[in-house]
Amino acid sequence: MSIRSGCALCDGDGGIAVHRGELLRVIRVEDADFPAFYRVVWNAHVPELTDLGRDERALLLDAVAIVEGVLRERLAPTKINLASLGNMVPHLHWHVIARFDWDSHFPEPIWGRRQREVLPAAADRLPLGLPQMDTLVRRALEAADR
Amino acid sequence: MSIRSGCALCDGDGGIAVHRGELLRVIRVEDADFPAFYRVVWNAHVPELTDLGRDERALLLDAVAIVEGVLRERLAPTKINLASLGNMVPHLHWHVIARFDWDSHFPEPIWGRRQREVLPAAADRLPLGLPQMDTLVRRALEAADR
Repeated sequence: MSIRSGCALCDGDGGIAVHRGELLRVIRVEDADFPAFYRVVWNAHVPELTDLGRDERALLLDAVAIVEGVLRERLAPTKINLASLGNMVPHLHWHVIARFDWDSHFPEPIWGRRQREVLPAAADRLPLGLPQMDTLVRRALEAADR
Repeated sequence: MSIRSGCALCDGDGGIAVHRGELLRVIRVEDADFPAFYRVVWNAHVPELTDLGRDERALLLDAVAIVEGVLRERLAPTKINLASLGNMVPHLHWHVIARFDWDSHFPEPIWGRRQREVLPAAADRLPLGLPQMDTLVRRALEAADR
């Protein structure tokens, strides 16, 4: 498997490890503004979606869809945001973020301008705790053998 | 097919029409900072990726990959950025954007903070004109019957 030393997603998990599969892993990003923020990371160091074959792309997108499904079912967010940017870390990874109409940046992208201060804190407004969410995400990925 | 009146992507193409397929279309976004900016739009009004079945998801992502492939081959961008947000227009669409290390916001997301002024204008720095890019994107989608 291709690994690049000095790449943050080759040298470490890149966040709280939720699931480790053979080809991909899922981590949770610690972000106070967006607590329900997961990343699906392709384990090998490739920069772009089209560096994968069609079957590999389908596997990756299945994992993205599984994470999205758990977020929708458990948190009923206003919207799911998906993105694969990698301008700073060109190692294929997908952001899967539950957005709420009350969150700090909605309806702006999380990289846009802050719209409001949020109190109580975002994590405290979710119907489930984050460790419980991690467990549900992990189980859904394991059930699908991803 | 589900259509929602008042939705910008149900009421019109949403940009310069590049390709119209039965299930999805591709438009080019007119953005002076990011001229090689396409959108793959699912024709029916559904908000999220997981509102599609697995085969539909694969079709959508094939189209995203085809557009990405043309951008990479013809423009050799520093990075491709993909995103499906829809906070303002919750109708499933994917941004496919060629990013360059000289562009106005790189390495920030296009929704982030401007990093520099770009002269000559971004479109004039591309090795191909945008109408020619549109034709190449259209042909690639037609060849794949998307």
